[in-house]
Amino acid sequence: MNEPRYDVIAIGNAIVDVIAPCSDELIDELQLNRGGMTLVDTVRAQELYDAMGPARETSGGSAANTLAGLAALGAQCAFIGQVADDQFGQVFAHDIHSVGIDFDVPAREGEPPTAQCLIFVTPDGQRTMNTFLGASQFLPAAALNEEAIGGASILYLEGYLWDPEEPRAAMRRAIETARAAGRKVAFTLSEVFVIDRHGGDFRALIEDGLIDILFANHHELEALTGLPDFHDGIAALKDKVPTLVVTRSAEGAVASSNGDYAEVAAEPIERVVDTTGAGDQFAAGFLFGYVRGRPLHECLRLGAICAAEVISHYGPRCEADLPALIAEKLG
Amino acid sequence: MNEPRYDVIAIGNAIVDVIAPCSDELIDELQLNRGGMTLVDTVRAQELYDAMGPARETSGGSAANTLAGLAALGAQCAFIGQVADDQFGQVFAHDIHSVGIDFDVPAREGEPPTAQCLIFVTPDGQRTMNTFLGASQFLPAAALNEEAIGGASILYLEGYLWDPEEPRAAMRRAIETARAAGRKVAFTLSEVFVIDRHGGDFRALIEDGLIDILFANHHELEALTGLPDFHDGIAALKDKVPTLVVTRSAEGAVASSNGDYAEVAAEPIERVVDTTGAGDQFAAGFLFGYVRGRPLHECLRLGAICAAEVISHYGPRCEADLPALIAEKLG
Repeated sequence: MNEPRYDVIAIGNAIVDVIAPCSDELIDELQLNRGGMTLVDTVRAQELYDAMGPARETSGGSAANTLAGLAALGAQCAFIGQVADDQFGQVFAHDIHSVGIDFDVPAREGEPPTAQCLIFVTPDGQRTMNTFLGASQFLPAAALNEEAIGGASILYLEGYLWDPEEPRAAMRRAIETARAAGRKVAFTLSEVFVIDRHGGDFRALIEDGLIDILFANHHELEALTGLPDFHDGIAALKDKVPTLVVTRSAEGAVASSNGDYAEVAAEPIERVVDTTGAGDQFAAGFLFGYVRGRPLHECLRLGAICAAEVISHYGPRCEADLPALIAEKLG
Repeated sequence: MNEPRYDVIAIGNAIVDVIAPCSDELIDELQLNRGGMTLVDTVRAQELYDAMGPARETSGGSAANTLAGLAALGAQCAFIGQVADDQFGQVFAHDIHSVGIDFDVPAREGEPPTAQCLIFVTPDGQRTMNTFLGASQFLPAAALNEEAIGGASILYLEGYLWDPEEPRAAMRRAIETARAAGRKVAFTLSEVFVIDRHGGDFRALIEDGLIDILFANHHELEALTGLPDFHDGIAALKDKVPTLVVTRSAEGAVASSNGDYAEVAAEPIERVVDTTGAGDQFAAGFLFGYVRGRPLHECLRLGAICAAEVISHYGPRCEADLPALIAEKLG
């Protein structure tokens, strides 16, 4: 096995986030799934955009956000995802290239446009996401750079992208490629609705020993295992997944890895401005520690620090100088 | 003369800002005009964008920013400017509509795209702007809604847009329309390079008594009058322009209006994050006071409060609840 060229290669939705603050009343009025992620079609997306206040656009996408955090920490990364040949596609590609991440999937011609996520942020900082998948759902297996996948320590997959058919097939093939090359496969469950639809697939991947690192929040853990008790859920999975990481919002996070167990509290911050990207940046910090061979409790702490940074401002990607922040926090 | 339908109608560039923090070294390396605004062509725009870090996109444009501030303060406004039929054009239109500003100029088909301003923000908060005018420079006189112009208390014009030929002709016609309807004409000089190119036009407009309210910063005042001393510049103009407003960055601002004279200090803030939009929001606050018939010193104070708000965060438009902020500051 050659020395890996990348620390992490990820497959995910290539999305531009459209973010605006909003009132609690507007969430009710628009009948949004508060705090969750909902897939929307063109008509609903337009309806929601029309109702939204002045917005800011920034690159998003769960796995892409995680890579941006990893790159900011100093990891070598590559991204696989599908944009359209339009301005939002250019924005996405620019932002990911500008932090040094390799991304060379050609933009897709014609309709639909690049994926967009309309994010309403309530005064408590909670984000409510409405995603129009656009070009993202047409990522073909042919877009996989198998040499790059085989040359990455970790293949990181986003559960959101399991929903559309073409990317699901691409991800299955990527898992085979990574495993054939002796690499690790990491998977984030993304959202309860994905588990409702594809939990059978995910449980099969786990039973077949195809997932080395699994990320979930406590709601997703319950949806996957059917066990309402958090500790029961971990107990049920810990012998099937070499490394299991479960985030619990303000209650911190826990991890179980090859017999080790560790917990971390949430990193204190002054004010939660926008929770968009919290889980993604937690994964970034954790994976950075993981690829650098840090102890489990330190991996969790790195995750907590990155998550705290991203929720203290608008937008799904960290803005602080992460290496400096971590040096300050970890001493 | 009918009761005006709008407080302010503005003609300006319809721009999406692409904003990223950058180092002082990058400003030197790219040979940017630090703190200024430079027009760039497609090739240079691409070169600068390639060199830029991860960015956020928000609606901008000098006069449009001023209107957004006015609308947030409670004024009735309309905007005239040209976007292309593309995603950035949709972003611009959405953001201006979403704050209640009327804007109905149809998007222009085909190339070039909607105007973009690449804004590099150095650690001191100074913004360096590089504008690709795109569709904005093709605003035709036919796009003017003359009934709306005649029905607005103030017609507000942006000096930046004097540079391209079509919008210049449109603005000349708009001035005639406004004056024929007995309305006021306000003009912002925008930037020294515009005065270098069109100072003769501006001096003629002033001599002909066509400008009722003139906004300038101290550099622009010097460029227009040729007088290096600030007070000499004001003395030279004050009898030709009924209301003259001159901003001086951290030194505050002064105004002369029909024999009155007033000064205001800059509003103290914790930290300058991004000076983009400072002049635009100063104009918003001032004009709001003006249309509400407030005393001159209070108009200046309103300008200073709005400018201080916008430079305390990234982006060219105010984010705070401006009426609440003003109630707090003015008591």
